[in-house]
Amino acid sequence: MGATGSSPSCCFFRRFFILLALGCADGGRLLVVPQDGSHWLSMRVLVDRLAQRGHYIVVAIPEVNMLFKDLDNYKVKTFSSPYSKDVLENRMRRMNQEIFVDRILTEKITFWYESMSNATQWVVSACQHFLQNSTLIRELEKEHFDAMLTDSVFPCGEIVAEHLSIPSVSFMRGTIFGMDQIASQTPSPPSYVPRMFTVYTDNMSFSQRVKNFLIHSLEHIVCHIFYYPYAQMASDFLKKEVTAMSLFSRTSIWLMRYDFVFEFPRPIMPNVILIGGINCAKQKALPQEFEKLVKSSGEHGFVVFSFGSMVSEIPMNIAMDIAEALRYIPQKVFWRYTGKAPPNLGDNTHLVKWLPQNDLLAHPKARAFITHAGSHGVYEGICNAVPMVMLPLIGDQMDNAKRIESRGAGLILNVQNLIPDDLSNAVMAVIDNPSYKENIQRLSSLHRDRPVQPLDLAVHWVEFVMKHKGAPHLRPAAHDLNWIQYQSLDVMAFLLAVLLTTLFISLKCSTFACRCCCKRNTKPKRKTKSE
Amino acid sequence: MGATGSSPSCCFFRRFFILLALGCADGGRLLVVPQDGSHWLSMRVLVDRLAQRGHYIVVAIPEVNMLFKDLDNYKVKTFSSPYSKDVLENRMRRMNQEIFVDRILTEKITFWYESMSNATQWVVSACQHFLQNSTLIRELEKEHFDAMLTDSVFPCGEIVAEHLSIPSVSFMRGTIFGMDQIASQTPSPPSYVPRMFTVYTDNMSFSQRVKNFLIHSLEHIVCHIFYYPYAQMASDFLKKEVTAMSLFSRTSIWLMRYDFVFEFPRPIMPNVILIGGINCAKQKALPQEFEKLVKSSGEHGFVVFSFGSMVSEIPMNIAMDIAEALRYIPQKVFWRYTGKAPPNLGDNTHLVKWLPQNDLLAHPKARAFITHAGSHGVYEGICNAVPMVMLPLIGDQMDNAKRIESRGAGLILNVQNLIPDDLSNAVMAVIDNPSYKENIQRLSSLHRDRPVQPLDLAVHWVEFVMKHKGAPHLRPAAHDLNWIQYQSLDVMAFLLAVLLTTLFISLKCSTFACRCCCKRNTKPKRKTKSE
Repeated sequence: MGATGSSPSCCFFRRFFILLALGCADGGRLLVVPQDGSHWLSMRVLVDRLAQRGHYIVVAIPEVNMLFKDLDNYKVKTFSSPYSKDVLENRMRRMNQEIFVDRILTEKITFWYESMSNATQWVVSACQHFLQNSTLIRELEKEHFDAMLTDSVFPCGEIVAEHLSIPSVSFMRGTIFGMDQIASQTPSPPSYVPRMFTVYTDNMSFSQRVKNFLIHSLEHIVCHIFYYPYAQMASDFLKKEVTAMSLFSRTSIWLMRYDFVFEFPRPIMPNVILIGGINCAKQKALPQEFEKLVKSSGEHGFVVFSFGSMVSEIPMNIAMDIAEALRYIPQKVFWRYTGKAPPNLGDNTHLVKWLPQNDLLAHPKARAFITHAGSHGVYEGICNAVPMVMLPLIGDQMDNAKRIESRGAGLILNVQNLIPDDLSNAVMAVIDNPSYKENIQRLSSLHRDRPVQPLDLAVHWVEFVMKHKGAPHLRPAAHDLNWIQYQSLDVMAFLLAVLLTTLFISLKCSTFACRCCCKRNTKPKRKTKSE
Repeated sequence: MGATGSSPSCCFFRRFFILLALGCADGGRLLVVPQDGSHWLSMRVLVDRLAQRGHYIVVAIPEVNMLFKDLDNYKVKTFSSPYSKDVLENRMRRMNQEIFVDRILTEKITFWYESMSNATQWVVSACQHFLQNSTLIRELEKEHFDAMLTDSVFPCGEIVAEHLSIPSVSFMRGTIFGMDQIASQTPSPPSYVPRMFTVYTDNMSFSQRVKNFLIHSLEHIVCHIFYYPYAQMASDFLKKEVTAMSLFSRTSIWLMRYDFVFEFPRPIMPNVILIGGINCAKQKALPQEFEKLVKSSGEHGFVVFSFGSMVSEIPMNIAMDIAEALRYIPQKVFWRYTGKAPPNLGDNTHLVKWLPQNDLLAHPKARAFITHAGSHGVYEGICNAVPMVMLPLIGDQMDNAKRIESRGAGLILNVQNLIPDDLSNAVMAVIDNPSYKENIQRLSSLHRDRPVQPLDLAVHWVEFVMKHKGAPHLRPAAHDLNWIQYQSLDVMAFLLAVLLTTLFISLKCSTFACRCCCKRNTKPKRKTKSE
């Protein structure tokens, strides 16, 4: 069942010596179970730093993957995938096309449901391949890890961590349907904490609060349904009854990729550590070809444009609309795009297969950032104080975009129904209207003024969990209560019962007293009558 | 109305040059309104550090006070007090005696209520003297401060901050009746967050949860009553309607002197910064006389004993019981005590008028710490990993003691009803039973393993508030909702109304449909009959 071995891309001897060095280092032993795709790009910043600090790191990944490259700094264990490279790439290509299709609401819901079901099936299937790879599992057992670092947006890592009896650190932006908040016992009053996918701010109208309340009320059930396949798989693998909630709630530390410059202020739990902006940590000088282009941009500067690492090609009609919008703006545009160049591409627009996004945004000549509003990109915009034009596509991107727009640091456009003039107007607005620059500078200044940098904070807490075998002192006692107890419903029922009993007895007593009085008052009367 | 001037104890010239230097420094301008007593001892660690960092600091204190000494590092503004030094000292002496009296529950409640009322009267009266000192207020207006640092257990500072329109940073262990949690919009589910003065842990029985729920439910009302004099005073002074809640909730950053090694894990808000253990920051070498005593303690080491900076003398019968308990233990005892020495004092027991508590506890020969469980002392015990025997007296001390006892790092005794054997047994237990040492070492290790030291964290956030003129990005939108909206009661009522209306209409429709059916069914029958 699937091969176990090293990533084929790396040089055997180089890795051998690195592993020898790491194995001898006086560090912890960490198992990393990441998610493929853009999630890995920020997690690897942390994993790299942990490796540099001398910890022995094993990364467990599927053989067939998208972005697990250049893994020479750690030991890599692979497990077979339920799909081939071609199938994966085809799927991504189809997905890339489909997310640009303009749909009516019912179609959107159907598309979204189907995408989620398919994604879940794929990820569950990949996880099954991991768990059923008994050779790999035995190898991991022998490693005696101190802790696991995992992106538990899908809780496959947590199942393995439970099997290995090691504490885990979760690294993520958030889970679907707020499972991270439910599992960490974070109170999230629906009156001002907007739920994921609602695209609300923390200042909601009454009708928005009604919808937010309903969504919040349904989250427990939806989470149960959505994560049921994992619970079932975990129960089979661990040979004990496991719920999705119990899988997630075993997390020792939640490293969350946001802070309250971006997210709306709301309660957090002691084991939730905010590391928003961790992906801005690595700043390097621009490669020569970009340095030249940047220099040639003159006083107008340049605009950075990317749909993120996962979307390279887009439908030609949309590409042409975008090209049309950008060709007349005075800035140079660096557009990350691997598809066929649209025929109407302006002279100012440079298509590149890859761009050093954070380093370009850090350049003083960066004037605007056209982005799909993925959480990584948004934070790079915040860190470098570049106002944004946001074209959200899927997932949390619409919510992310709303957070930036509500702070007056960017504008949102609907990419599925894009009018070229709207895009060029939006780009010119965020460049020419100083309020956008001022607002993003304010956000950037608040974000960067922190006592400890997000990467150092993340490193500290992973090392903390390795050293102290978890963080049980940060685990709220709420985990030991059922929902009725947590909400004090039993207490309220008891107090209501006491109140009603007291009222009933009082009423009975007073009725009885009244009757006695009446009898006393009526008896003499009768007597008088008889007299 | 009261004098405004410098603290009389300091050397004029020394201060002149320090102020000249500070005034020229490229720092912020900070007004400090502290509370007298032990609260000041930890706040001054922060104020000293801020002064060292070149900020211009003005401390506003009453002329007659207990612990505001050696204030040469900052500019001091005093206001007249409603009491003389003698009256203040007599009051403290009486209080010191009264807290040692053993009382039955009803007496305890009466004593507690009277103490609180008297304390409030005194503090309100002192605050009135501050606010009515128009010369001082005008001087403060001219200073154009960037922010205020205040201990808002009593919110006098907040009134002045509101008048000066400057953001404020609160520095405290907590307020009475959980006002800090209410005002910062922290959700505190009574099912596992024990309320102050209950002496419960986070693992409560059903009856404890009932009591905790009732206390929690009453807190809003009690806070309103308790802080009403401040609201009234603020309304008069600010010439606008002010509530206690609005005074407290203007706080930009809450610097709370605890962490979750000591406090039970529970939700916190983004503007609540945990700086527990800030008072352990200053570690110095032991003075020579203590160094000698410590050296002479031999293999058995020594015990540190103090009722804190506010309690120096105790009733002779209790002093004798304590002396009796301590005379037979093999350790040397350093007992901070300024009263008459009990005649039965053992040779091993050294009475001292002052002791370098934190530095003594940091010594490897420190075996146990007998303490009244004030939050400062408890943190010094945690920082230095010394197991505790706790004799709580008033306020939050019983709660503090419970937190340490529940972690197996100390024992609680009732000092008002002390049996000498119990004390000596307790001291020997925490020294001889390794579990106490192990537990306090575990707590200490968890507490000290933090990414940034509490003093640095506090400095960062005060400077943050000075630099950014507050921290509005950390202020939850819950502040803009009333209680009904916050709890979503209006939403629930609306949804219930919709549900009931739908049910009612459905019922009516089905009744109408049934009737129609019945009519149709009965009509032919009649026809048949007539036939």
